Amino acid sequence: MVDSKSQTADLGIVQLDLDRPRRCGYPEVVFGEGKSAETLLKVIQRLTAEGHEAFVTRVHPDAAAQLAGGLAGLRHNEIARTVRVRPNVQATAGINPAARELVGKVAIVTAGTTDLPVAEEARETLDWMGVATDLIVDVGVAGPHRLPAQLHRIQGSDAVIVVAGMEAALTSVVAGYVDCPVIGVPTSVGYGANLGGVAAVLSMLNSCAANVVVVNIDAGFKGGYVAGMIARRQARNPKHEIRNES
Amino acid sequence: MVDSKSQTADLGIVQLDLDRPRRCGYPEVVFGEGKSAETLLKVIQRLTAEGHEAFVTRVHPDAAAQLAGGLAGLRHNEIARTVRVRPNVQATAGINPAARELVGKVAIVTAGTTDLPVAEEARETLDWMGVATDLIVDVGVAGPHRLPAQLHRIQGSDAVIVVAGMEAALTSVVAGYVDCPVIGVPTSVGYGANLGGVAAVLSMLNSCAANVVVVNIDAGFKGGYVAGMIARRQARNPKHEIRNES
Amino acid sequence: MVDSKSQTADLGIVQLDLDRPRRCGYPEVVFGEGKSAETLLKVIQRLTAEGHEAFVTRVHPDAAAQLAGGLAGLRHNEIARTVRVRPNVQATAGINPAARELVGKVAIVTAGTTDLPVAEEARETLDWMGVATDLIVDVGVAGPHRLPAQLHRIQGSDAVIVVAGMEAALTSVVAGYVDCPVIGVPTSVGYGANLGGVAAVLSMLNSCAANVVVVNIDAGFKGGYVAGMIARRQARNPKHEIRNES
Amino acid sequence: MVDSKSQTADLGIVQLDLDRPRRCGYPEVVFGEGKSAETLLKVIQRLTAEGHEAFVTRVHPDAAAQLAGGLAGLRHNEIARTVRVRPNVQATAGINPAARELVGKVAIVTAGTTDLPVAEEARETLDWMGVATDLIVDVGVAGPHRLPAQLHRIQGSDAVIVVAGMEAALTSVVAGYVDCPVIGVPTSVGYGANLGGVAAVLSMLNSCAANVVVVNIDAGFKGGYVAGMIARRQARNPKHEIRNES
Amino acid sequence: MVDSKSQTADLGIVQLDLDRPRRCGYPEVVFGEGKSAETLLKVIQRLTAEGHEAFVTRVHPDAAAQLAGGLAGLRHNEIARTVRVRPNVQATAGINPAARELVGKVAIVTAGTTDLPVAEEARETLDWMGVATDLIVDVGVAGPHRLPAQLHRIQGSDAVIVVAGMEAALTSVVAGYVDCPVIGVPTSVGYGANLGGVAAVLSMLNSCAANVVVVNIDAGFKGGYVAGMIARRQARNPKHEIRNES
Amino acid sequence: MVDSKSQTADLGIVQLDLDRPRRCGYPEVVFGEGKSAETLLKVIQRLTAEGHEAFVTRVHPDAAAQLAGGLAGLRHNEIARTVRVRPNVQATAGINPAARELVGKVAIVTAGTTDLPVAEEARETLDWMGVATDLIVDVGVAGPHRLPAQLHRIQGSDAVIVVAGMEAALTSVVAGYVDCPVIGVPTSVGYGANLGGVAAVLSMLNSCAANVVVVNIDAGFKGGYVAGMIARRQARNPKHEIRNES
Amino acid sequence: MVDSKSQTADLGIVQLDLDRPRRCGYPEVVFGEGKSAETLLKVIQRLTAEGHEAFVTRVHPDAAAQLAGGLAGLRHNEIARTVRVRPNVQATAGINPAARELVGKVAIVTAGTTDLPVAEEARETLDWMGVATDLIVDVGVAGPHRLPAQLHRIQGSDAVIVVAGMEAALTSVVAGYVDCPVIGVPTSVGYGANLGGVAAVLSMLNSCAANVVVVNIDAGFKGGYVAGMIARRQARNPKHEIRNES
Amino acid sequence: MVDSKSQTADLGIVQLDLDRPRRCGYPEVVFGEGKSAETLLKVIQRLTAEGHEAFVTRVHPDAAAQLAGGLAGLRHNEIARTVRVRPNVQATAGINPAARELVGKVAIVTAGTTDLPVAEEARETLDWMGVATDLIVDVGVAGPHRLPAQLHRIQGSDAVIVVAGMEAALTSVVAGYVDCPVIGVPTSVGYGANLGGVAAVLSMLNSCAANVVVVNIDAGFKGGYVAGMIARRQARNPKHEIRNES
Repeated sequence: MVDSKSQTADLGIVQLDLDRPRRCGYPEVVFGEGKSAETLLKVIQRLTAEGHEAFVTRVHPDAAAQLAGGLAGLRHNEIARTVRVRPNVQATAGINPAARELVGKVAIVTAGTTDLPVAEEARETLDWMGVATDLIVDVGVAGPHRLPAQLHRIQGSDAVIVVAGMEAALTSVVAGYVDCPVIGVPTSVGYGANLGGVAAVLSMLNSCAANVVVVNIDAGFKGGYVAGMIARRQARNPKHEIRNES
Repeated sequence: MVDSKSQTADLGIVQLDLDRPRRCGYPEVVFGEGKSAETLLKVIQRLTAEGHEAFVTRVHPDAAAQLAGGLAGLRHNEIARTVRVRPNVQATAGINPAARELVGKVAIVTAGTTDLPVAEEARETLDWMGVATDLIVDVGVAGPHRLPAQLHRIQGSDAVIVVAGMEAALTSVVAGYVDCPVIGVPTSVGYGANLGGVAAVLSMLNSCAANVVVVNIDAGFKGGYVAGMIARRQARNPKHEIRNES
Repeated sequence: MVDSKSQTADLGIVQLDLDRPRRCGYPEVVFGEGKSAETLLKVIQRLTAEGHEAFVTRVHPDAAAQLAGGLAGLRHNEIARTVRVRPNVQATAGINPAARELVGKVAIVTAGTTDLPVAEEARETLDWMGVATDLIVDVGVAGPHRLPAQLHRIQGSDAVIVVAGMEAALTSVVAGYVDCPVIGVPTSVGYGANLGGVAAVLSMLNSCAANVVVVNIDAGFKGGYVAGMIARRQARNPKHEIRNES
Repeated sequence: MVDSKSQTADLGIVQLDLDRPRRCGYPEVVFGEGKSAETLLKVIQRLTAEGHEAFVTRVHPDAAAQLAGGLAGLRHNEIARTVRVRPNVQATAGINPAARELVGKVAIVTAGTTDLPVAEEARETLDWMGVATDLIVDVGVAGPHRLPAQLHRIQGSDAVIVVAGMEAALTSVVAGYVDCPVIGVPTSVGYGANLGGVAAVLSMLNSCAANVVVVNIDAGFKGGYVAGMIARRQARNPKHEIRNES
Repeated sequence: MVDSKSQTADLGIVQLDLDRPRRCGYPEVVFGEGKSAETLLKVIQRLTAEGHEAFVTRVHPDAAAQLAGGLAGLRHNEIARTVRVRPNVQATAGINPAARELVGKVAIVTAGTTDLPVAEEARETLDWMGVATDLIVDVGVAGPHRLPAQLHRIQGSDAVIVVAGMEAALTSVVAGYVDCPVIGVPTSVGYGANLGGVAAVLSMLNSCAANVVVVNIDAGFKGGYVAGMIARRQARNPKHEIRNES
Repeated sequence: MVDSKSQTADLGIVQLDLDRPRRCGYPEVVFGEGKSAETLLKVIQRLTAEGHEAFVTRVHPDAAAQLAGGLAGLRHNEIARTVRVRPNVQATAGINPAARELVGKVAIVTAGTTDLPVAEEARETLDWMGVATDLIVDVGVAGPHRLPAQLHRIQGSDAVIVVAGMEAALTSVVAGYVDCPVIGVPTSVGYGANLGGVAAVLSMLNSCAANVVVVNIDAGFKGGYVAGMIARRQARNPKHEIRNES
Repeated sequence: MVDSKSQTADLGIVQLDLDRPRRCGYPEVVFGEGKSAETLLKVIQRLTAEGHEAFVTRVHPDAAAQLAGGLAGLRHNEIARTVRVRPNVQATAGINPAARELVGKVAIVTAGTTDLPVAEEARETLDWMGVATDLIVDVGVAGPHRLPAQLHRIQGSDAVIVVAGMEAALTSVVAGYVDCPVIGVPTSVGYGANLGGVAAVLSMLNSCAANVVVVNIDAGFKGGYVAGMIARRQARNPKHEIRNES
Repeated sequence: MVDSKSQTADLGIVQLDLDRPRRCGYPEVVFGEGKSAETLLKVIQRLTAEGHEAFVTRVHPDAAAQLAGGLAGLRHNEIARTVRVRPNVQATAGINPAARELVGKVAIVTAGTTDLPVAEEARETLDWMGVATDLIVDVGVAGPHRLPAQLHRIQGSDAVIVVAGMEAALTSVVAGYVDCPVIGVPTSVGYGANLGGVAAVLSMLNSCAANVVVVNIDAGFKGGYVAGMIARRQARNPKHEIRNES
């Protein structure tokens, strides 16, 4: 049942926040880790009944398979570990990922190949938010000519996401080339003294570049979400340009 | 002398980046910690000669006093530990902090009174960037009615900066009320198990809200800088609004 | 055999503390982790023979299944991972969970759905102690209207238990609304920089609210036990006594 | 000026929570660290004007001396680093520490002599709350006969506060003897691998006793405050109410 | 082959130290972790050929089973994870564990039941060294009367080994009762903030008792070895007594 | 006054353990850090009145100077930061450090010159205990021929104390040459990644040698005390020898 | 396809750096962890097509087996977890590991037997680089005569690699005997307070010897690579050049 | 006096290693921290008497001033905190820093201006070793065009030292451009989450470039020493020998 006053749907062990679109601009995204397929199903059905495209992150492959059996139009990105389900009402056809026009632009850059799953989670998030992305993989600084060759795809973005493990040096390097926020997503890629990604977190927090912000380790969703918020805000104005007062 | 090719001013132990306005939208900001007044003077003079308003952070009071003696139009914010010096050319009159029109809007919120110096550094940074700010002090969650009373000043911002030490719970709470990025600036305020601010860093990195990003401990400048980048980008379009597709 | 002087039952590799009800008000609770079903059986039988309801925490499902085969009246809470076995003497019929009257009131609040197992362990502990509970799940601060809607169930408690992982911001927020102790039970829910729950521990230890105390990560039992101690003491009946005093 | 709706007194950089007595049972306690004497004076005057006894913790000796010059009836506990100032209205004469009757009982136990300042802060807090205390100093486990000799002063308390640095073993030992909550206050007493008190925090969090809860390092105030909450609730008078309710 | 000069047996990837009995009083003990059964077999055969009783710690059950098939007189302690093999020459009959007379006395005390495997490793080590032991299990401080009841078995030892996880408070308590070294063996027993045994290490290093020394987490062998060294040295003199000069 | 039952002298904020000589073989040693000269004076006078030589560690130079003014026969070791005061009764003349015969032998070895203060604290402790010492300074492994040149002074000791900071490699090297316990005293000597001595602690705890035990960082007293306990026990028997059964 | 300008081969999720031999002297080495056999195959084929011997580290056994099925001349070192594949062009016959002449000399020394896999990775790397190696296993300091017996094999090297876990004392000891760089490769060998190799890292970083540098935990490849760089530079032939320059 | 057998000069609390030039190629360098001017004087005089140029690091300014008063030809680098004193024999005139010919080439690169003191210590060390240096200051990645402009000074070096604090991203970037070892010297420059330089250590240890090795935080001497060892070995003169061989 729905508590009309608080805009919360009481689904037993889940209190679904129905008021979030009004406050935050997007419906609640479901953190899939530790939730059973049954619980996820209940939440997804409610979200889609409200006219939202449901978005679930960190879904276990088994849960995804169970869900896929019972939900038409489910989109499972195995690399990103995400599930999306279209709203079940006609009026929301514009949400159709295939049909809608994406706005803004976010570049997602990874240092290595193994950072890809986290980058994919960010990409999927932005796609769900209706923001255009450009994914550039494996341009870490050990091969220093790889990044310059791709700078044209990165500069001019509304925000840049850098997904990097190990020492995450790419983050500061990218940040030196752009006039927009760089969202560092540290990954647990590496071994030994990477301490499960803590080394990359510290590296990004201590960036010598002023425009770097950081989210949790392997938090592709968060990185994508914040980038999307920035991109959507400035999407409407085609002439948004920074005045360089100097 | 200037290296015209690299756009770097070689000032001895400082290689001033003259190309930064083109790449990043703002001139280089000087990290004052560990630099002598002599070194700072040289850098400031070069920046102002290029037509920039020089901005120095983490200036020791003694160095600031020395600089104030030799530089006209110097603005020293003692709480923020910042120094600003106007450009020395006529054409840049529009930069005059008193004259220019500030654009955008960033709310800066602190959990406690002792977080103020870090918030002031953020505010000064945004002012230097030409972005309007609203500073709301001491609305931590222990007094839960204080934040709601100020929400009208926070909602509708282009970005929100939350400055908080101890357990930094305010960050997630604020984030739940807004549809823009929340930039968490953890402070070293607290004692014992705050571990010099590490507790606040971890709290912010693990925020249950999706729109929280984090910068270094006590990094008011970084928090302000990224918020400013976001705010300036969407300043031009008066009608920028988020379409809530749900 | 029992050492009448020391009130210890020597069960081989377990020295069961038979004097605990006198000193602490409750019989010894058994930490099930790392103990074989054989060892657990021996301890349970001795406790029930003494007229106590045996309570075992952190029981492996296999051990619980083995025990269930041999012990009548065993209650296994799979989510909480606890086992309870009624005393095997007639005089203790009042202990029957279904029959006895619960006293006091403890609210158990969780930030998210995945914090439930820890909350269940706390709830089961309080039930064993004879204290009434009210379990409120998934009211974390990202959906800030969810908590106010439940405040009437929380205020007026003898103690409140907040079960939260990630940044555990809910703890301080709840604490700001009540005039009783808030016992923070940090959980290992989260990933990356949550460091297995250490982030939540630090958050709770650094709470800006004065009435927050902390127990170990995932320590639902401890949280429940201390809350129960507080609640029983102020139960209406001025002569509230612990049943099963040996 | 006072915001009547939010019950907050806007004192510039301090937003004083005037509603706290209603919600939490006691007026706001002021964290003195990092606040100037001017700021403290303003807060104290407002609190006493509301009829509360003002209580400030972690006051620098210089600030205390400055305050003592301007405030009649100020009580400065140098060891505890606290300041208390009586309300400035006649009706609150009963608050007079010398005159009022203290209720409940909290035992404060320290492991060593150097833990005394933290214990004094707890004691002062409880006195301010109107709770009776018994302070037992230097009974750490290295001299194991010292604690048993004092057990009669500890058992029967409403709550026990154990103040201990180094390995804090005393906490678990005391907890094994009582049927009430034991609030561990870890101190930074020790050196080397005590890591500024973190060793004591970990020791207390991992206590083998079920009735131990923990607060921040050197947090004598918090330890006292929670103990006081517990003690006041079960004070003999069934209608025990907090005086000074604004 | 043996290098007669260096007293090293070159066994391929093992350089067996044949000179150790002369320097250190005992033959080399083999660290079994990460070594194949083939490697272990080679080392054991060489040690027994030299007339030593071979002693291997941290043996995987599979490796132990493989070894048991090929070596007569092998003694596998499954709980301790140790293997011992008698020397294969007649002249060493006195070494026979069954026949030889044990000297000295070391008390091994555990806080809980789950600390047993580590205690067993210590006991097996001492038995191999020819030192008498007394193993006292599950006398942690939560049941404070359990230790005093066993003090007569502990006092008068040449050294005491305390095996404890969680907060390891038992170590300091035992140390306060004896006039010999107490060797703390921290265990990884516990969860959450025990950080895999680090909490117990820190607790023991910071003991308020002067006679506590510490070895690695779960290092039953090391604890036993050092205790054995102490016990054997004073074994010969039946009248060794400490003169208390006070 | 003395509590004859508990053998505790109640000196206000100090509860002096008068029973310690009986239990532990030596009177209580006073931890001087954080204690005023007044408090120390009171404790010293009581100890000497009982016929003990008082021993205080970690005394601030100012406190030592104050004490020296009022106590005849005070011995202040400035490097070790210790103070010793002879008993004030005739019968204890044998305790006179100059007159009494020292027994046993403990070698104290330092890796570098700057480890000396910690080594001196250990030496002073052993001298107070009546144990002979041999202090060997600056034989760290970077100059590998320095240790072998001194081995004749180390081998044959009852115990060896290795005082070392940085990576503390000397500990394991010394341990490989002796048949007695090696007590590692990690020091805070070093910088950067030595983490205030934690690197040396970890190094010693992980020693590949079986006969290494560890005490707290800079804990010269503890190292000396345990070594002294070992040495005194085997002092009486001139023929104590280890039987090497191999 | 190849981007001739940037010298990068775009292989989908891998951007292969074809310019590396020119810049760094060796072709790119492939980090095998987290890469599928398909991805590895694509990279290997491209490298060998360019005339390089492909070198892959940290290959999962399953991936290695899959690769071995499809690639002639593959060399899989199971202990080192490396795969090498010869170039597929005739002109590079000299690269044949069996045929080519190795230059320089690097000694690889391990403290224990279980450090072998990491040492093997280093040895394989050096062999691939065309540098001669001498592998000396199990000469840790607990058996102090083992190292001197092998010093003739170590002294005179161009660089020495010390592979050690636990407290890694061997590193400083070796460094004291040689006049070349010592590259410390800390391993995760050990348990408990070794913290997964962090103890060895700290030990090596704090070495009292001036000629010790450190790489990541278990980073045999890195240790070998840097040693190889040093050795090749000073190989006798003044014109020593890296073969396989693309 | 000199022990001719061990080649150690016994200077009381210093055991000077006179054999080091033979073993390691250079005389012992003195770690000045924590040593008195008197001790330093004694060591310097002995070194210069042996014909070596004495080199002392981390000298306190006061000690340096005292030494300068008594030693002719002393060279004090205040920024580097080093002292050098020429040998006092005629035959060593060639050591004169002004006169001798430097060999090899090491580039020292700093990320920022405040890293200079550490870089100066490295430069001074190399100069003492007789190796040519090129110091390039303030070319961190935030101004990405600064490094390429200086690459011609870096490439072709025998070794490169990168001195960097904060996130130390410059290290990996430089490493991608050179075919020689890169020695990372992490500095404590930065604040907050730089954890006193630990962030930079972790960043360097986790470098994605294969040719990066790391030394301790702020260890300019070590970085310089290892670079010097590499450079001297491959100096053009095939008979490059270290002067001052004792």
